[in-house]
Amino acid sequence: MQDIPKHVQYFENLLGKENTKSDKLHKLAYSYDATREEREPDIVLFPRDENEISKILFYCNAHKIPIVPRGAGSGFTGGSIVAQGGVVLALEKYMNKILELDQKNLIVRVQPGVINKDLQNFVESHGLFYPPDPASENQSTIGGNVSENAGGMRAAKYGITKDYVMAVRAVLPNGDIIRAGKKTIKDVAGYNIAGILIASEGTLAVITEITLKLLSKPILKRSAMGVFDTIESAMNAVYKTMASGVTPVAMEFLDNLSIRAVEQKFHKGLPMEAGAILITEVDGNLPEEITYQLAKIEEKFKENGCVDFKVAKDSKEGEDLWFARRNVSQSISVYGKKKLNEDITVPRANLPLLLAEIDKVSKKYGFKIPCFGHTGDGNVHTNVMVEDLNDLEKGHQAITEIFKIAVDLEGTLSGEHGIGLAKAPFMNLAFSPEEMQLFRSIKQAFDPNNILNPNKMGL
Amino acid sequence: MQDIPKHVQYFENLLGKENTKSDKLHKLAYSYDATREEREPDIVLFPRDENEISKILFYCNAHKIPIVPRGAGSGFTGGSIVAQGGVVLALEKYMNKILELDQKNLIVRVQPGVINKDLQNFVESHGLFYPPDPASENQSTIGGNVSENAGGMRAAKYGITKDYVMAVRAVLPNGDIIRAGKKTIKDVAGYNIAGILIASEGTLAVITEITLKLLSKPILKRSAMGVFDTIESAMNAVYKTMASGVTPVAMEFLDNLSIRAVEQKFHKGLPMEAGAILITEVDGNLPEEITYQLAKIEEKFKENGCVDFKVAKDSKEGEDLWFARRNVSQSISVYGKKKLNEDITVPRANLPLLLAEIDKVSKKYGFKIPCFGHTGDGNVHTNVMVEDLNDLEKGHQAITEIFKIAVDLEGTLSGEHGIGLAKAPFMNLAFSPEEMQLFRSIKQAFDPNNILNPNKMGL
Repeated sequence: MQDIPKHVQYFENLLGKENTKSDKLHKLAYSYDATREEREPDIVLFPRDENEISKILFYCNAHKIPIVPRGAGSGFTGGSIVAQGGVVLALEKYMNKILELDQKNLIVRVQPGVINKDLQNFVESHGLFYPPDPASENQSTIGGNVSENAGGMRAAKYGITKDYVMAVRAVLPNGDIIRAGKKTIKDVAGYNIAGILIASEGTLAVITEITLKLLSKPILKRSAMGVFDTIESAMNAVYKTMASGVTPVAMEFLDNLSIRAVEQKFHKGLPMEAGAILITEVDGNLPEEITYQLAKIEEKFKENGCVDFKVAKDSKEGEDLWFARRNVSQSISVYGKKKLNEDITVPRANLPLLLAEIDKVSKKYGFKIPCFGHTGDGNVHTNVMVEDLNDLEKGHQAITEIFKIAVDLEGTLSGEHGIGLAKAPFMNLAFSPEEMQLFRSIKQAFDPNNILNPNKMGL
Repeated sequence: MQDIPKHVQYFENLLGKENTKSDKLHKLAYSYDATREEREPDIVLFPRDENEISKILFYCNAHKIPIVPRGAGSGFTGGSIVAQGGVVLALEKYMNKILELDQKNLIVRVQPGVINKDLQNFVESHGLFYPPDPASENQSTIGGNVSENAGGMRAAKYGITKDYVMAVRAVLPNGDIIRAGKKTIKDVAGYNIAGILIASEGTLAVITEITLKLLSKPILKRSAMGVFDTIESAMNAVYKTMASGVTPVAMEFLDNLSIRAVEQKFHKGLPMEAGAILITEVDGNLPEEITYQLAKIEEKFKENGCVDFKVAKDSKEGEDLWFARRNVSQSISVYGKKKLNEDITVPRANLPLLLAEIDKVSKKYGFKIPCFGHTGDGNVHTNVMVEDLNDLEKGHQAITEIFKIAVDLEGTLSGEHGIGLAKAPFMNLAFSPEEMQLFRSIKQAFDPNNILNPNKMGL
């Protein structure tokens, strides 16, 4: 980036020195996300409101300065780090307020920098419920969640971020401020701009305000765990349960490698020989609903080879059942220095085939590939564990094969992490040249000078 | 349109004479929709498959021929009629097949010309459930439903068409065939193209295949009706019930004028003096769920001035309760020769204010304005009844005021009917010049020669 001192001067005049940073410490602090890749911006800006964002974008557009909106920087694909210098627009410092709770309409209006878990806690204190719960919920922001269309454990029943976004305010790259969507359940006037901004990874506009749908908080919930001898039987149980007329809140799995890793670290008495465990939760307002759902799940599990089914007696036991799932990600590091983790997703009925194919990749390349994740919606976190860093290239070959398998099984490169920089090279596995051209045309329609988060998503 | 014989010749070579029509009868048959406006196309084409559609679009694009995709022609805003000559692409003749029922994943894949009710019946015969049920369900096609983002009575609990579209195949104006979305619940790779095609009214691409999410069919349902002395108390009951922790499948209302119209025509013993009635339905898999929901609704209704609450004993009585709602649209014609009907939508808690303001418009202009509709999601069908056709202009002024009221109450011009030609003049009430410019940029990205359904949506 050229003329940095000149641009810094402009931004200092606009935002104040305290909100315009180009020192080494700030550049470092805003250079990374959960990919652990480091790319330093030239300038970090802390806008206080939408009007400042509009002026910043207008200026960057006029000077063709790349600019990347950023929440907590907890993403897994490099969505919030610069590709090659430029400005980071840091939204977590000031743009972090819950603006309105509309209990009459079950709606909350927030700024993008609000942390997911803070929002959940806030609305639950009013008897309401915001279901999307990405594993990063304690760090990640709603703006980031919307930009990546974050999922989470409760997606099996409650869907993902896009199912809760009713409206947004946003600033276009030219500085224009727009509203999109409404506080109404139905709205068919004009193109669905909010819909295309979701999962656009900050490449089309900077979202400055988000209106979210809330639900009433269910009164009761109960967890259960099923143990299976083989992963195939567990995967069969998943899709047959989900098609049985009950919809559990969550339906998570750990494969044998994942179970062993957690057990070795925490000694919780997990079934070390099991092919897989499924951990599930149901909710409702009536005890009868809970009983009915658990009975149906037990029936479907046992029809499909479940050798042990345990229902948590209370919330304490429920938390114990969930312990393995919540601690699996850190535990599997025992299998290798470098973890290449992906979040492919397939239609649920293809899960048995997917896991069988991943096993073949593991054997072919000689890597352990522990798998766990959100099987209730077909989303599997695959982790190619590389022990010898000289094998990294081979690890990436294994990942490429896994992506191909997922796409062949009518699945997607990413269920919830996004594309960003990390998966950009694989976009051509999933999309035709015509489809990529359409993406570029849309990018061009919003951002003709290509200043907003450039070089992401393979565009 | 120029050179019609030349174009007819080309299309006859491509599709055969039997699928290329430019005679008066066909032009007339494809000139109207439910707006009753008549605009004749120059040519009507009946493509047999996606490849033919691709070739037709390529040709139209090269010759800048306007082309309008059409399903059943049952829309309320002119979305499927030509603005000014050109080609109608009639999809109901051949592109009307259910291609795949995937019971393992609760998914169905259809061509755009499948009639909504046929799809509902088909999946219900397999114990599955496709909730969107627009009033036009016996005529309207899934392609039209997707293009207008159709709602229906069950939207209060089950959402609208967009909540069920997982993926589409479509042909771009240049003839490129694209896929968008996946058979997976989560998919965040690439821009949400399926999301922006929904409700785009056939202005961006021709949808050739639609993959829809299904649910398991709930085992039980029960209907109930509440009678209220005033419309205000009924509207308060609506939003307080919807925020109470139960979510009825439907929560429909008729105001006093609507009740009287049905009663005068059908003599069903409706409460002629009531300010409004609310008709509701709950569903579930357990009797306890039904009882719980009905008790909560009764409690909320009675807290808000319900003077009579009746639960249907069986499905026969349930049908009787729904009779008034199903027959209100035809009944209100007693109030005037010309019905100017709109489908404004507001956040539910603003319904009492909305209905009060509509009453003022009624008094100011001297028109009867019977209102009914989907209050469970804030969607009100307002009907300005014009007796003397010399008063039509005044009727349109009343409609304009109603649109302004809806927008001022954080609502939308259209909850489910779309914009098309009919509401195009009102787009500037709802959108800023910057927002309209963004719509035009998106249109341009998909359709640079503006051949696809031009002059719709105020673009």
